[in-house]
Amino acid sequence: MSEFKLIQKYFTRPTRHTHLGAGDDAALVTVAESMQLVISTDMLVAGTHFFHDAAAVDVGWKALAVSVSDMAAMGAQAKWATLAIALPNVDEKWLAEFSSGFFACAEAFNIDLIGGDTTKGPLNISVTIMGEVPTGKALKRSGAQTGDDIWVSGTLGNAALGLAHLQGKTMLKNDALQTSIHALYRPAPRMELGLALIGIATSCIDISDGLLADLGHVLKASNLGATIHLERIPVSPYQANHLHQPLVQQCTLAGGDDYELCFTAPPSKRDEIERLSQQQNIALTCIAITHKPAVHLDIDLQAMYQNKPLSLSNQGFDHFGQ
Amino acid sequence: MSEFKLIQKYFTRPTRHTHLGAGDDAALVTVAESMQLVISTDMLVAGTHFFHDAAAVDVGWKALAVSVSDMAAMGAQAKWATLAIALPNVDEKWLAEFSSGFFACAEAFNIDLIGGDTTKGPLNISVTIMGEVPTGKALKRSGAQTGDDIWVSGTLGNAALGLAHLQGKTMLKNDALQTSIHALYRPAPRMELGLALIGIATSCIDISDGLLADLGHVLKASNLGATIHLERIPVSPYQANHLHQPLVQQCTLAGGDDYELCFTAPPSKRDEIERLSQQQNIALTCIAITHKPAVHLDIDLQAMYQNKPLSLSNQGFDHFGQ
Repeated sequence: MSEFKLIQKYFTRPTRHTHLGAGDDAALVTVAESMQLVISTDMLVAGTHFFHDAAAVDVGWKALAVSVSDMAAMGAQAKWATLAIALPNVDEKWLAEFSSGFFACAEAFNIDLIGGDTTKGPLNISVTIMGEVPTGKALKRSGAQTGDDIWVSGTLGNAALGLAHLQGKTMLKNDALQTSIHALYRPAPRMELGLALIGIATSCIDISDGLLADLGHVLKASNLGATIHLERIPVSPYQANHLHQPLVQQCTLAGGDDYELCFTAPPSKRDEIERLSQQQNIALTCIAITHKPAVHLDIDLQAMYQNKPLSLSNQGFDHFGQ
Repeated sequence: MSEFKLIQKYFTRPTRHTHLGAGDDAALVTVAESMQLVISTDMLVAGTHFFHDAAAVDVGWKALAVSVSDMAAMGAQAKWATLAIALPNVDEKWLAEFSSGFFACAEAFNIDLIGGDTTKGPLNISVTIMGEVPTGKALKRSGAQTGDDIWVSGTLGNAALGLAHLQGKTMLKNDALQTSIHALYRPAPRMELGLALIGIATSCIDISDGLLADLGHVLKASNLGATIHLERIPVSPYQANHLHQPLVQQCTLAGGDDYELCFTAPPSKRDEIERLSQQQNIALTCIAITHKPAVHLDIDLQAMYQNKPLSLSNQGFDHFGQ
């Protein structure tokens, strides 16, 4: 199968808001008046970001979902994506499954695939996503103010726990297993929430590298600090029952791949945020309040564990760090 | 070195037309009024697109240059790029050289690097480039009209000849060697030419896969045909002297990686195109005229070689083809 036929068969679908999609030297779109263009690029590598034997349909979904999450974190409406993929060989079964997962995510978030590249090489997937945000309204990391509440959506640590299970570091069962594996393979980016947070949140980030690392980015960019209490972090029932285990603590505080949003907002917005939580049926939990001086993060695990300080081996995921 | 320090050290430079660059969940730019956004993504894999031991500075230049060429082919002004790169390990010497080549190209074409991703994996570089074109004016592949002249810029086949030399398929010397290797490693995308062709050309493509393949795309998209005479294709002095060799013919007709432009224009534009050629000091050669019926490509090599038909083993580069 030629490169051109492969693209035609697996990566071409009708577009909805695109003048010229795949098939020319470049794609053409129009950014609406009074909107800014928001752009993010992610790269997923087999063996680094997913197991070589991961189901292709899940890899396809996640490849786009992690990028949609970046749009959510900016308060942007995702609209367009390009997909560059290196394949070791043409495995039509894999391609059919991958593209069905990718387009399932594209449909769910009304995103046009407008171009890309296919080539031969070790399996590597790079997605660039583009969206729109009203000019001047994007949710940056740097906007948090002293005394802002720090909120997180959903529950944290599920995906990391699922990964730990697959790595044989723990043994999950029943609901806990299902919830964790689903969180790992089928993250649900919070785009509707991100859009609704415009005008409410002062800063926002998606939790891809773990709460401590990602909240750390917000606090550093905003020159603020915060004190985090483990028991205030929203977790699954399984985690709540096993919060004494270092692995569960680690997954909760520093586990990546959740793609929940962490945002700051002034206390005056609490009612509005509660209403938003009910409207969208998403748990939104205030976990701390920003403060000066900017020590960034002071983790109070001791309140819960009778003065036994916890050693965190990793404050988040860094591809080249220790 | 952490991922964040690596990005800070090697991939962060001041931006010129960007509201928010690398360092947040996404970048923010404004597309000018009455302009369309033009987007293209390319992926370069070590061992497929360049030799594992290729000089990193050249790889860096070419990684961006091939994308700039896609903007040129649309008549677009390149403005922004993202870079996703998978690295087997942190080799600071390689990174310093790669980024110096990448930014040399970015400077040459006034492009802001606005974000991307770095991760661990077999060496893979994916660039998404974005630019602007006046609304409705982009040079598509589908605009060629019956009776249009077919033009190419520069000379063709140099890069492919350089590759053939490195693969031991031929032995070049002196000027021919220098010219070919430079064409292969340091392609000069024709962005100024592409911009000037708006209002002149009816269709345009950049020659990345070889003349026959790329002109074939234009003719297919425009539902036209053309008869190509080998002797009318502009080539280097070395190729002109060796045009009887099948390898030289192959490189000239089907050699990729030249990044010259191939465009169509009505005969009424000939004077204007000649003036453009002089202004920009770029050879522009009319190689054929489009015709109906749409047999696409009829290659007349026989005129030159006394009825000895040439067997072309490949009409262009296809990553999964034969």
